[in-house]
Amino acid sequence: MKYVKNYECTVCHKIYDKTELINTCKACGEKGILDVNYDYEELKKVLNKTYFKNNTDYSMWRYKHLISVYDRDFSNLLKVGWTPLYKSNQLRKDLGLKELYIKDEGLNPTASLKDRASIVAVVKALEENALVISCSSTGNAASSLAGNAARAGIDTVIFVPKRAPLGKLSQLLVYGAKVISVDGDYKDTFRLSKEAINHFGWYNRNAAINPHLVEGKKTVALEIAEQLDFTLTDWVSVSVGDGCTIGSVYKGFFDLFSIGLINKIPKILGVQSDGCSPFVTAYTTGCPLVEAEENTIADSIAVGIPRNPIKAQNAVSKSGGTWITVSDKEILKAMKILGSKEGIFGEPAGVAGFAGVINAVQQGIIKNTDSVTVIVTGNGLKDTTNALKAVGSPISMKPNLHELIKYLK
Amino acid sequence: MKYVKNYECTVCHKIYDKTELINTCKACGEKGILDVNYDYEELKKVLNKTYFKNNTDYSMWRYKHLISVYDRDFSNLLKVGWTPLYKSNQLRKDLGLKELYIKDEGLNPTASLKDRASIVAVVKALEENALVISCSSTGNAASSLAGNAARAGIDTVIFVPKRAPLGKLSQLLVYGAKVISVDGDYKDTFRLSKEAINHFGWYNRNAAINPHLVEGKKTVALEIAEQLDFTLTDWVSVSVGDGCTIGSVYKGFFDLFSIGLINKIPKILGVQSDGCSPFVTAYTTGCPLVEAEENTIADSIAVGIPRNPIKAQNAVSKSGGTWITVSDKEILKAMKILGSKEGIFGEPAGVAGFAGVINAVQQGIIKNTDSVTVIVTGNGLKDTTNALKAVGSPISMKPNLHELIKYLK
Repeated sequence: MKYVKNYECTVCHKIYDKTELINTCKACGEKGILDVNYDYEELKKVLNKTYFKNNTDYSMWRYKHLISVYDRDFSNLLKVGWTPLYKSNQLRKDLGLKELYIKDEGLNPTASLKDRASIVAVVKALEENALVISCSSTGNAASSLAGNAARAGIDTVIFVPKRAPLGKLSQLLVYGAKVISVDGDYKDTFRLSKEAINHFGWYNRNAAINPHLVEGKKTVALEIAEQLDFTLTDWVSVSVGDGCTIGSVYKGFFDLFSIGLINKIPKILGVQSDGCSPFVTAYTTGCPLVEAEENTIADSIAVGIPRNPIKAQNAVSKSGGTWITVSDKEILKAMKILGSKEGIFGEPAGVAGFAGVINAVQQGIIKNTDSVTVIVTGNGLKDTTNALKAVGSPISMKPNLHELIKYLK
Repeated sequence: MKYVKNYECTVCHKIYDKTELINTCKACGEKGILDVNYDYEELKKVLNKTYFKNNTDYSMWRYKHLISVYDRDFSNLLKVGWTPLYKSNQLRKDLGLKELYIKDEGLNPTASLKDRASIVAVVKALEENALVISCSSTGNAASSLAGNAARAGIDTVIFVPKRAPLGKLSQLLVYGAKVISVDGDYKDTFRLSKEAINHFGWYNRNAAINPHLVEGKKTVALEIAEQLDFTLTDWVSVSVGDGCTIGSVYKGFFDLFSIGLINKIPKILGVQSDGCSPFVTAYTTGCPLVEAEENTIADSIAVGIPRNPIKAQNAVSKSGGTWITVSDKEILKAMKILGSKEGIFGEPAGVAGFAGVINAVQQGIIKNTDSVTVIVTGNGLKDTTNALKAVGSPISMKPNLHELIKYLK
């Protein structure tokens, strides 16, 4: 918390002291999501290329000065962050791009980017001596919370909508979470979790409401920048559900820009499924955000009422980026391409960002002189049922060489 | 290959020049599995604590001098290795051990330890300009080969037995492998792959046959040693199927001991499922290894005829370790304990090594003055069907707070 200046309401811009234990603005209520402001002048004195070169902590805590937590020993937690950023060998050529980088967030401890937020929730809960953390989630926020909390010895109560895939549920239960499967959609799930958190006084890990979680998630942007030696690509593409992740990607770049470590913020491409695209609809119609259907295989971004609209919309508009949709079919195709050409296996929502790049190239939004970074937000093993839709079946045969030779001819 | 001295047959000890492109001993045939010998005197001049301290390559290639490949740019491959070694917070106390460390190999790019072998197969295939790599596998060797080869632009043909779990198959297919699902057990699968590899002249990634793969896998032991600052625990526990992994763990420690970087080799605990335990049977009866049933949920170690018996048996006997079995029930219990107490989610074969530690403590084989390292060889997301057996179901309810309060009372 050393370099945190204060909290600021994203709606009315009221300032709160950093010692206040609040989640949202007292004046604006739940819509008054807070932003964490830092003292960039002080940070400039500490954070420079040499600082990072000499930093041997290869986890997200190498950026602890830019996260709104008190300093502590982080080594007894799960090792979150410093996931690989792959330079594309083959796909860059196939797409005709100047450069293409792929950030594989599926290699976090519970196999998604959400670990970066959940571990911050765990640290904040430890700071406040909370005994239980709770959230509602389509899956990854929940499993990452359950895993990170288990390692820290904190109990979790998780609310999931009925449609959450098997892989994600098994994770939750193995991590020892109390799992409440809500007979309803994400909206119902979120509401019940909110009521229960208020009633029981549990620590709240709902990402939009809790301003610290974006501060954890933004480390993905900090890492991308450092892994590119602080010279970023023209575009960064990411899939969008609640709006927290895209908001955090922008915040990470904004921090680095404010400190002077990068000299431009990349254009951010916000990618939604065409089966659930409230942000894209608001962008193309110029109208306020309205509730959308939740009809896509990309369950992690199937969020009809995004809880973090302001940060998400700012991320695209302030970076000069744009919004785009992809179909489920395009998502499955992107999954197969990314797997077979680069050896990276992402879940549907995880590869949607890459499907968006393919579309944006086809539409001329991304030019062949542009360089691009894609964030693959979660591991394909989270949802093998949908993965199998992307690829068909293996070839079944008896253990007989002649049959095989005949087949392969 | 700079520090490789020669190859040596593990049966007749005949020596082969390191430039020979052979897999097994010409005199002993398929049983004559080769060992790679290194020039430890030359390595002593290069590898010391300072070398590792200054090495900024946080992948398995930081140990490239101890891997039988020619030096090249490894950065365009998947980032394999440098997985976390967690110091146990809670389980050490529960088990009454001096120290407990857990190596989470499920965080490799395709989610298992097998990436360490497969990436070496890919590099050797690149060295030999091979266009296709092939293997038979119960799953992880295959998916790791498919992923690593995809990233390197090499085609794969994979033979899997019919029982391979869905998660592993979906990985293979997403990575673009040609998958042959063999209507038979692992033995039939292995035989067909061998015949096909001979017939088509594909590069052979069958771990027991190919001596280089153990050299890749052993980096898990090198990492454990370095992460413990070269002061190892009394025991290292690992699950055993084909025998390659346990053989490689010993080889890694043997290398470090020969170079003088560690002063003792830990006792190795070889853990098998009681539904498929040829090594344990041979050990307890004192008789030669005979074919065993393959009847366990831990599919990755369900190998009735282990292909690498000599290296596996040497690992236990030369380290002063022992063999132990665990039941499927104990494996599932270990999965839940590891997940809920440490936030680590392993697949059945992945957590069998930990189940073995629990048994070994109960039997007094591991004492409460002992320190232990457990290798969790694969990610639980690989096999969520079995994971769900370990944990039961979530609590289903309508989105109603009163119902929830009543339930939680």
